Amino acid sequence: MVVGLGPGNRDSFTAEALTAIREAQVVVGYHTYLNLIPDLIEGKEMVATPMRGEVERARQAVELAAAGKTVAVVSSGDPGIYGMAGIIIEVAGGRVPVKVIPGVTAASAAAASLGAPLMHDFAVISLSDLLTPWETILKRLEMAAAGDFVIVLYNPRSHGRPNHINTARDIMLKYKAPATPVGIVRQARRGQEERTITTLDRMLDVEIDMLTTVIIGNSQTRVAGKYMLTPRGYHL
Amino acid sequence: MVVGLGPGNRDSFTAEALTAIREAQVVVGYHTYLNLIPDLIEGKEMVATPMRGEVERARQAVELAAAGKTVAVVSSGDPGIYGMAGIIIEVAGGRVPVKVIPGVTAASAAAASLGAPLMHDFAVISLSDLLTPWETILKRLEMAAAGDFVIVLYNPRSHGRPNHINTARDIMLKYKAPATPVGIVRQARRGQEERTITTLDRMLDVEIDMLTTVIIGNSQTRVAGKYMLTPRGYHL
Ligand SMILES: C[S@@+](CC[C@H](N)C(=O)[O-])C[C@H]1O[C@@H](n2cnc3c(N)ncnc32)[C@H](O)[C@@H]1O
Ligand SMILES: C[S@@+](CC[C@H](N)C(=O)[O-])C[C@H]1O[C@@H](n2cnc3c(N)ncnc32)[C@H](O)[C@@H]1O
Repeated sequence: MVVGLGPGNRDSFTAEALTAIREAQVVVGYHTYLNLIPDLIEGKEMVATPMRGEVERARQAVELAAAGKTVAVVSSGDPGIYGMAGIIIEVAGGRVPVKVIPGVTAASAAAASLGAPLMHDFAVISLSDLLTPWETILKRLEMAAAGDFVIVLYNPRSHGRPNHINTARDIMLKYKAPATPVGIVRQARRGQEERTITTLDRMLDVEIDMLTTVIIGNSQTRVAGKYMLTPRGYHL
Repeated sequence: MVVGLGPGNRDSFTAEALTAIREAQVVVGYHTYLNLIPDLIEGKEMVATPMRGEVERARQAVELAAAGKTVAVVSSGDPGIYGMAGIIIEVAGGRVPVKVIPGVTAASAAAASLGAPLMHDFAVISLSDLLTPWETILKRLEMAAAGDFVIVLYNPRSHGRPNHINTARDIMLKYKAPATPVGIVRQARRGQEERTITTLDRMLDVEIDMLTTVIIGNSQTRVAGKYMLTPRGYHL
């Protein structure tokens, strides 16, 4: 089972995710996530792995499942969105059945903190070029902006690629007005959340890091009091 | 509070959503959703409204909140994705504070049932032209396909617009191979789920209705045994 824990603390888990972890004999995951659930994993076999060890983590999980154990691989947010679901299915290669338990993804969590920026069609793009050619990412940024999508950026900045977000912003400015609302949410639903609503021309003044999700409005998006809002278009 | 119930039955609720409903004095929502939670709403004031009554439902909720009550408006999936969050913020107009509690959206639920089709950048598009000009939707379908996004279609077909899905498919075929995997999930996580993995050229043979989410792969998406998979690109 690949289990989504949602974006934040325990109260962002679904009942289904809790049950899956309780039923598992082995729990596999990154230390930080396992630390959220000490009571649930007590007495179980544990495989804690470092952040970048996705392939290794998947191999260990599949080996254990092939040996007959019920294994839960925990992943933050939704495991199906830049999470562990894909690599587990690849590594399993049909040898063991895989069940994916969805979770609340960072886009939904960030949007909730900002108000309602995703009420209209949106595109989700990761700025990480570790596994994706940078040209592909640039093309997608262009097409999403040209289509007037609301755009959600995951992995917006890291030490290895501090300027990708600047390039992304420049592409947005080719299609979107400088005053387009931009919402920036760090550590959504984690108790130390920071949220800022700014504009496309000023967004680079805000601290953006790997724990941040950035939401760039479409041509209809506006600021309504404390909220970022992309109206659906109801007649009021 | 605008509260996301997730796509399915009780076990797709987050703990936070349950708490919000418990704390509310009034619960507002479409009958079907209220029927899922009889025990939680027992003894509370209820406002059950018909499906299309979004604006009316929002007005009633805001009136009650302005009168000092704690109100929970329940919405399926994530209330911030084609749900009730936007209209509530619009109608509230700053008179009462609005808190959005995110939920698992249909894209995540459908993806989980199919395997891992959303491991790469994706676009979410609603085919409903009730509130959006059809030309805008067509433009977005073009741009998303040109950008090689995985594409998630909400509201893929209704009685009033039975052929929009055919047009969407034709646009996809201008950019994507006929053999591109397509996943179709009806009633995800609701106990009577139906899921099909097919291809772009044959997708119209499958029953698609308003309770269905359609996921169209990108150029890398493949079928891996029983699963639809868009590999992230790890070296195995
Ligand atoms: C490798 S992706 C994993 C996404 C995760 N599977 C999900 O569905 O949310 C990591 C990125 O997700 C975003 N993210 C995850 N959790 C977040 C949170 N609590 N607040 C803000 N952004 C978050 C950030 O953009 C981060 O760089
Ligand atoms: C008005 S939208 C509401 C979306 C909802 N707020 C969410 O985040 O999932 C309704 C559309 O969502 C999709 N949908 C919602 N629940 C679903 C489910 N359980 N299974 C499949 N599709 C679903 C269908 O495409 C449906 O036409």
